[in-house]
Amino acid sequence: MKLILASASPRRAEILRDAGIPFTVLSSAVDETPLPGETAADIVRRLAAAKAELVAARAVGPAIVIAADTVVALDGTVMEKLSGRTHSVITGVSLIRLPDVERREFTDITQVHFTALSDEDIVKYLASGEPFDKAGAYAIQGVAGRFIPRIDGCYFNVVGLPLARLCRELSTLGWTEEQN
Amino acid sequence: MKLILASASPRRAEILRDAGIPFTVLSSAVDETPLPGETAADIVRRLAAAKAELVAARAVGPAIVIAADTVVALDGTVMEKLSGRTHSVITGVSLIRLPDVERREFTDITQVHFTALSDEDIVKYLASGEPFDKAGAYAIQGVAGRFIPRIDGCYFNVVGLPLARLCRELSTLGWTEEQN
Repeated sequence: MKLILASASPRRAEILRDAGIPFTVLSSAVDETPLPGETAADIVRRLAAAKAELVAARAVGPAIVIAADTVVALDGTVMEKLSGRTHSVITGVSLIRLPDVERREFTDITQVHFTALSDEDIVKYLASGEPFDKAGAYAIQGVAGRFIPRIDGCYFNVVGLPLARLCRELSTLGWTEEQN
Repeated sequence: MKLILASASPRRAEILRDAGIPFTVLSSAVDETPLPGETAADIVRRLAAAKAELVAARAVGPAIVIAADTVVALDGTVMEKLSGRTHSVITGVSLIRLPDVERREFTDITQVHFTALSDEDIVKYLASGEPFDKAGAYAIQGVAGRFIPRIDGCYFNVVGLPLARLCRELSTLGWTEEQN
């Protein structure tokens, strides 16, 4: 059964590629504006589901569509700017198997501990260009790794896709590697 | 002050490169046979120190030599084979600043949780060739990532170099990025 990644994120594609999992990409653009009163977990769940629906409507089965949305949350609300505080990274994942439209939806949370950042650290990091277009304005796999002495949870979830949980859920939809 | 990585490991070099830290490589070969009664932490401390000494003897300062040794430990002893059990990854790091031979030595521990592996999972993973030459016979950054739903500690320590702690200790030796 083929896998279709409903994401234009080069980081999510790299996670699957490094794990040796074959897939194709069919990306979707959804309006990411939060709704009034939504928590961080609500947002990622809603956006992952919306991305999966859009791509499933265009895809041909048999296949499983994989969509995800990642935010950085501080006390339950989305953190847009870089902060030196310990926070949560939440990824919502939505899977749709085609042609029978069987679904799986889950979220995964990783706690990320940052070292205290000086104003100079922040200015230099922003100047590196790396924060652009990243949830929470940092990339653990890049320069920001030096500010992160500890995480508690799935590493790949921080990069954008909770790999171990994803593989488990894909199995429950009948995906095995031999079929690829 | 230039940094000299006393390691032929492509994974350690990649951690520094991805973090935007300039360095040169001057590798050393030491006898890695454990001594009778040594714990996992004893081994990494001794081998990191031995690698740092060897390279420091050949290097020209001003510079800081960075040496490291990583093992996977289960109940305090080194685990050579892949196991589906939760374990610790321990990296010993030894820094020597030249020419004044000021030293820093530390170890960093990360708990790694594995999903239960079937015999089939293990056979397939061994066949991938990835386990070869890796501490504990797996690479979290590769195919094995799918078996690891959670870590507690520094991610880069599992790959082979505890980046955040390293940067902090380098600072105490007077290293700053502007000097490179």
